[in-house]
Amino acid sequence: MPAIVTLTSDFGGRDAFTASVKGVILKLNPLAQIVDLTHDVAPQDIWEAAFTLRSAYSYFPKGTVHLAVVDPGVGSSRRPIIVVTESYYFVGPDNGLFTLIYQEAERLRVHHITAAHYFLPNPGPTFHGRDIFAPVAAWLAKGIPSGHFGDEITDYMKLSVPIPKVGASTIDGHVVHIDRFGNLITSISYKILRSLLTEGADLGTLSVSIVGREIKGFKKYYSEAAPGEPSAIINSDGVVEIFVYKQSARNVLSAKRGEVIRLNVYK
Amino acid sequence: MPAIVTLTSDFGGRDAFTASVKGVILKLNPLAQIVDLTHDVAPQDIWEAAFTLRSAYSYFPKGTVHLAVVDPGVGSSRRPIIVVTESYYFVGPDNGLFTLIYQEAERLRVHHITAAHYFLPNPGPTFHGRDIFAPVAAWLAKGIPSGHFGDEITDYMKLSVPIPKVGASTIDGHVVHIDRFGNLITSISYKILRSLLTEGADLGTLSVSIVGREIKGFKKYYSEAAPGEPSAIINSDGVVEIFVYKQSARNVLSAKRGEVIRLNVYK
Amino acid sequence: MPAIVTLTSDFGGRDAFTASVKGVILKLNPLAQIVDLTHDVAPQDIWEAAFTLRSAYSYFPKGTVHLAVVDPGVGSSRRPIIVVTESYYFVGPDNGLFTLIYQEAERLRVHHITAAHYFLPNPGPTFHGRDIFAPVAAWLAKGIPSGHFGDEITDYMKLSVPIPKVGASTIDGHVVHIDRFGNLITSISYKILRSLLTEGADLGTLSVSIVGREIKGFKKYYSEAAPGEPSAIINSDGVVEIFVYKQSARNVLSAKRGEVIRLNVYK
Repeated sequence: MPAIVTLTSDFGGRDAFTASVKGVILKLNPLAQIVDLTHDVAPQDIWEAAFTLRSAYSYFPKGTVHLAVVDPGVGSSRRPIIVVTESYYFVGPDNGLFTLIYQEAERLRVHHITAAHYFLPNPGPTFHGRDIFAPVAAWLAKGIPSGHFGDEITDYMKLSVPIPKVGASTIDGHVVHIDRFGNLITSISYKILRSLLTEGADLGTLSVSIVGREIKGFKKYYSEAAPGEPSAIINSDGVVEIFVYKQSARNVLSAKRGEVIRLNVYK
Repeated sequence: MPAIVTLTSDFGGRDAFTASVKGVILKLNPLAQIVDLTHDVAPQDIWEAAFTLRSAYSYFPKGTVHLAVVDPGVGSSRRPIIVVTESYYFVGPDNGLFTLIYQEAERLRVHHITAAHYFLPNPGPTFHGRDIFAPVAAWLAKGIPSGHFGDEITDYMKLSVPIPKVGASTIDGHVVHIDRFGNLITSISYKILRSLLTEGADLGTLSVSIVGREIKGFKKYYSEAAPGEPSAIINSDGVVEIFVYKQSARNVLSAKRGEVIRLNVYK
Repeated sequence: MPAIVTLTSDFGGRDAFTASVKGVILKLNPLAQIVDLTHDVAPQDIWEAAFTLRSAYSYFPKGTVHLAVVDPGVGSSRRPIIVVTESYYFVGPDNGLFTLIYQEAERLRVHHITAAHYFLPNPGPTFHGRDIFAPVAAWLAKGIPSGHFGDEITDYMKLSVPIPKVGASTIDGHVVHIDRFGNLITSISYKILRSLLTEGADLGTLSVSIVGREIKGFKKYYSEAAPGEPSAIINSDGVVEIFVYKQSARNVLSAKRGEVIRLNVYK
């Protein structure tokens, strides 16, 4: 089986950054299968990278190495790390990029990468994606044990993740991501939302309030909604999503990431 | 030989959609070679996806599985299908996405995908690309016969494709696609256009009218045209294309998809 | 070892151009590993393609075939060529795209591609990327010797590359590229710049002037700079780069490609 290495970054598609990283990996590990997770994370947006990585990582085969580089602190004292979970490896900077992985992992080990003989010769202070993370990912994918790259640490960095506030008949959360279609992805999962449902009640008893508008009930699929009508759905990641069928909810509602939403029992 | 799976979608490059689809395919079929056809189809633009897929599919090796997901009706009663032609497999929603394949295929069989044991467990109603189409494509690429996924159907959906109107000395058609360079791709192929040419006459006897302007004659290659001069050419797909050398014909002519064009015998 | 073929172009991601090229390569050489270097070169911008290719090509394994197509003269008398260096093959139009490769190569041979039996049947005059360059790259990657494709030539085309002017205490250069982050990449390398440093002096004695502003000293890494402060650094390619931490130097300084910069000994 070929080793799979996925790449998540804010490198964009236009410059040579991504290709250099791929070249380094293939030079060390020509049989690696490299898959772009995304390179279009907004520049330096660690949260967006963390969110996107979390949505996709678990669909890959066991043993996949997920390399992620959104790294405004490159060259400073922030540490390069390897994260090992029960099924995957993650390689990147210790700046909170793997926060959501820490939350979901059942088993977790984090190594501070210090073994410089695995790096490119003379790594510079501005492009660790190419000089440090790419060769480490390539060696990991070749089977070098994670412990060979450096000692375990426990004080790795985590982003603060806002937790929905659950009241008696309300849940307060907010928009954590806006996707390509302009759909608003929220912090409220179906698991949390269920606490509002009395026995026998269904999603039709709930409403979502956002930017001063109230959306009553939930749709099962997108095309069930009337044109132009802001609607709510439990999306493919199991969380509450606000959409406008064949339009952009972001535009229709002038909503931004961080926007507050409230779930209500309305009938 | 590794099985090749191409992907066509409106998922864009920024979110986790495409990566999740790739992960699912690689988990089931780690030796699959996945090739992005495009993920930048305009959101929900079934025609654009159909057009782009048609331009590229036939260059791939026999046996390639072409997965295409532009799917505004996901989760509704629209059917998931497999299309089998003499050389390729196509997997996606039955919403007209494969209209141009139906036109070009010599042999054609369409299956309604119903065999849920090939899907991801508990597929949701919002992301069949990941939950249904990706695993089906992966299994197809592993050699499962198309008949195992569901019964053959004959009432599959087709988009209405406007046919050029051929007169005695004119052909009326329109712009069906505008490419990255701003070139205007039309519905008039060289095959159709030949009917206007009297014996011994060449393309120099024809003109193209668009947005009130007349373009006389055809160029053989792009750099033959004067700067800023709207020009016509038979392009690499064998159809009439309007271009402006090193500029965008879309901008210079303020033309849109759907714009009417007329071919004329002018001398 | 699978043969690696990288692709550099201005095809963008939306149309079928890139996918057709990949299909052609895979049909002839199903084991080829195709890597996108970039397809987002500005339309017809040969310099940008040359620059991006130069930044990445040397990170790939020896024997890699680098296919590059930014080709405004396609179909005219400009020649298709293969460039052979001590470690790599390059395939593309003879329009200056490989200028920076010619500068860096220790050994160099350039062949005019004329052996039409390696092309797709009936290649058209508008898409040599698909009809000529792709099959030639696929055959090269399969081991056909470069001499089989055509005779060696020595009058291949080079772009004029502006050389920094080194004075007694100044170096004049300019901005040659602006990356995704808005960083300004200049023509002045560390190798050239060292000539300004008197014995024992360091980079702190130098300043960079651009758009009427003077930037004193150099940073070692990006996050060392104060927010909003235009700063200079020796970047990962070993050249002077102007950046604004977590912002775009292009926007903050309203700078363009071609902008003049001057290095000065200021203390």
